[in-house]
Amino acid sequence: MSFFNLFKKKKSKDVAKDRLMMMLAYERANTKLENLEEMKKELIAVVKKYVNIKDIAIKTNSNQNIETLEVEIILDK
Amino acid sequence: MSFFNLFKKKKSKDVAKDRLMMMLAYERANTKLENLEEMKKELIAVVKKYVNIKDIAIKTNSNQNIETLEVEIILDK
Repeated sequence: MSFFNLFKKKKSKDVAKDRLMMMLAYERANTKLENLEEMKKELIAVVKKYVNIKDIAIKTNSNQNIETLEVEIILDK
Repeated sequence: MSFFNLFKKKKSKDVAKDRLMMMLAYERANTKLENLEEMKKELIAVVKKYVNIKDIAIKTNSNQNIETLEVEIILDK
């Protein structure tokens, strides 16, 4: 399943909303990315700069050598 | 399937690599996000600032009211 189809499946259930999702995934093989947390914060700040936020949900996940960040934003009109 | 599992499935096939994926998805219901292209460029610039890039693949997709951006980066040691 592609990311595009995954997002389509997660479409707004009831009323269609203006929605933005940003996801970051880091697969570590050899080197640890020192400033990953800082980069995550800066990416979220960029998104906040461009959109009016009605609701925001931030989810992080890490397992063995994979770390993910999921940011789901419901946009305000 | 969650994004985390989707990313795990897309793991480096042969040799594990330090890999970063960023995905952005925008579902438009009512209003068009004027500066979406600018935001995409700025997000990519932020990532480029924090990591050494060995290889980068950028894929965009749009269909009806959904637009997605997928950026896959193989990190340099």
